[in-house]
Amino acid sequence: MIDQTLVRIVLASRPEGPPVPENFRIERAAIPTPGDGEVLLRIRYLSLDPYMRGRMSAAKSYAAPVEIGAVMVGGTVAEVDKSRRPDFAVGDIVLSHSGWQTHALSNGEGLKKLDPAAAPVSTALGVLGMPGFTAWAGLLNIGKPRPGETVVVAAASGPVGSAVGQIAMIKDARAVGIAGGASKCAYVRDELGFDQVVDHRALDFAKQLADACPNGVDVYFENVGGAVWDAVFPLLNPFARIPVCGLIAHYNSAGPFEGPDRLPVVMRDVLTKSLTIRGFIQREFADQLPAFYREMAGWIESGQVKYLEDVVEGLENAPQALIGLLEGRNFGKLLIKVS
Amino acid sequence: MIDQTLVRIVLASRPEGPPVPENFRIERAAIPTPGDGEVLLRIRYLSLDPYMRGRMSAAKSYAAPVEIGAVMVGGTVAEVDKSRRPDFAVGDIVLSHSGWQTHALSNGEGLKKLDPAAAPVSTALGVLGMPGFTAWAGLLNIGKPRPGETVVVAAASGPVGSAVGQIAMIKDARAVGIAGGASKCAYVRDELGFDQVVDHRALDFAKQLADACPNGVDVYFENVGGAVWDAVFPLLNPFARIPVCGLIAHYNSAGPFEGPDRLPVVMRDVLTKSLTIRGFIQREFADQLPAFYREMAGWIESGQVKYLEDVVEGLENAPQALIGLLEGRNFGKLLIKVS
Repeated sequence: MIDQTLVRIVLASRPEGPPVPENFRIERAAIPTPGDGEVLLRIRYLSLDPYMRGRMSAAKSYAAPVEIGAVMVGGTVAEVDKSRRPDFAVGDIVLSHSGWQTHALSNGEGLKKLDPAAAPVSTALGVLGMPGFTAWAGLLNIGKPRPGETVVVAAASGPVGSAVGQIAMIKDARAVGIAGGASKCAYVRDELGFDQVVDHRALDFAKQLADACPNGVDVYFENVGGAVWDAVFPLLNPFARIPVCGLIAHYNSAGPFEGPDRLPVVMRDVLTKSLTIRGFIQREFADQLPAFYREMAGWIESGQVKYLEDVVEGLENAPQALIGLLEGRNFGKLLIKVS
Repeated sequence: MIDQTLVRIVLASRPEGPPVPENFRIERAAIPTPGDGEVLLRIRYLSLDPYMRGRMSAAKSYAAPVEIGAVMVGGTVAEVDKSRRPDFAVGDIVLSHSGWQTHALSNGEGLKKLDPAAAPVSTALGVLGMPGFTAWAGLLNIGKPRPGETVVVAAASGPVGSAVGQIAMIKDARAVGIAGGASKCAYVRDELGFDQVVDHRALDFAKQLADACPNGVDVYFENVGGAVWDAVFPLLNPFARIPVCGLIAHYNSAGPFEGPDRLPVVMRDVLTKSLTIRGFIQREFADQLPAFYREMAGWIESGQVKYLEDVVEGLENAPQALIGLLEGRNFGKLLIKVS
């Protein structure tokens, strides 16, 4: 029965602080029929990513918020179930942006066909998708690691952080990863081969990080904010670069923020150390996507870049999975297996 | 008598907060005799600049602090008074870094001969010197103004700010200057021809600035910090660039700083607006100096870049003049006419 019904998850209310299950609502509807020029997609995988917390808020950002009652947004891998377009055949696997639902209509716009023989199709949402491209584009365009330099990245077992560190090592830089808990740290050190890994849950985290960076920090790939920033900042070398792609530690907080005011100290160091702080969204570098696919696919094939997926079964578990992601409870790229 | 004595001003003590006259001490000594390979310089002009506040502190920065009892550092224009070097003749005018004194020995290192026929020699300390190069290098390498964009700069009647705005206009950008008081504002608007000027002493300064930037701000050349930052920050457009060359409003303050903590809001906007914040010291771009001299000299000759000097007579007035500079009391490039 459920297989003949479209299931979707909509934003029921905006979170105040961390999202709760009540911010989401499951809805059911008839599976729509594609009109002329349309395809019906059956979603296989939904990607869950930290940016989704931002879309749940009404605050101004680089993208419009999800409206109350609207389907939650998200990148998806889908199979063409019915087609009234000559360019898509039933059974084609595509990358789409269909959001938190089991089926979706599309007029073909923004769909990208995937080759299941080239790589597992789920990687189009991870290491060969937006997170991998975020790591590649931000590190190479802004971080610009040079041989022997030290690159620090947090969430190092996650899809962005793991790629940042591995690409840094390919560029002959030293990769220092930060992760939460013994098993993630072991994975980053033993499986990914980072030069150093530090557990941010350690009581003496800042000291351990300083010990792991005896020559200071040349690139801090900022994807978390919070306490990690405070520990990294004093270690920055002159001319250090800080690509900023995410601040997951802040996403659940609203201002104003208690003092002391850290901005004057940050700006003093920006000046006296000639630091670069540069926010970015990967789509700014979209013209480099072909080079990214080529390079990253090669590194995966050669084993220089490894990746890990954390697959949760069932769309109905997406709210709880996103809540866990924002608390750092995923281990690897978080995906919902929708069907 | 004083003409046969070397007069110098040394750092007597480190300031706590704004410098006071007691932080300086005047000393007299015999004029030294150059040894083989040396020249004796008679200082004509001493440049006073905001960075000198930093050198008076023991705090770690991009340059070593002046030691207690040592001569205050500073850029100078000098005349060769005696020479025991074949490459310098008596009467040659040179750019040197001789500091706050009437005479200095030099082994020739770092001296740059000036051509008094090409430009008034004092400009080697201003528009054709370090301040002008700071403006040129920071604006063109980091700010990168495009035609039609809005460039905001504070201390707009000063040597850096005035050059920033004028170069921005040469690049077909819109220049919005900030200055303190009616006469400086009138100069920036009427003499320099900035598109807009706003008085930071106005009670509704932030609103006036917003009104002067109806299309937002694409480049904020940060040379002051403080309240100007707070007024500019909300106006920044996506992909805005913020070259940071000085924070004069902070130089006299010590931390910790009272809350609220502004850093989370700044980092949120760095991320959501893809901002670039980039500290720099002009010497990073030293390989571009020939291009700078060529371009800037051309713009001065064509009248596209104007400059203003605020000349104070007598080395003994340098401490009070520097104190005034840090309070914004100079009007144009502050120079001490030493002899």
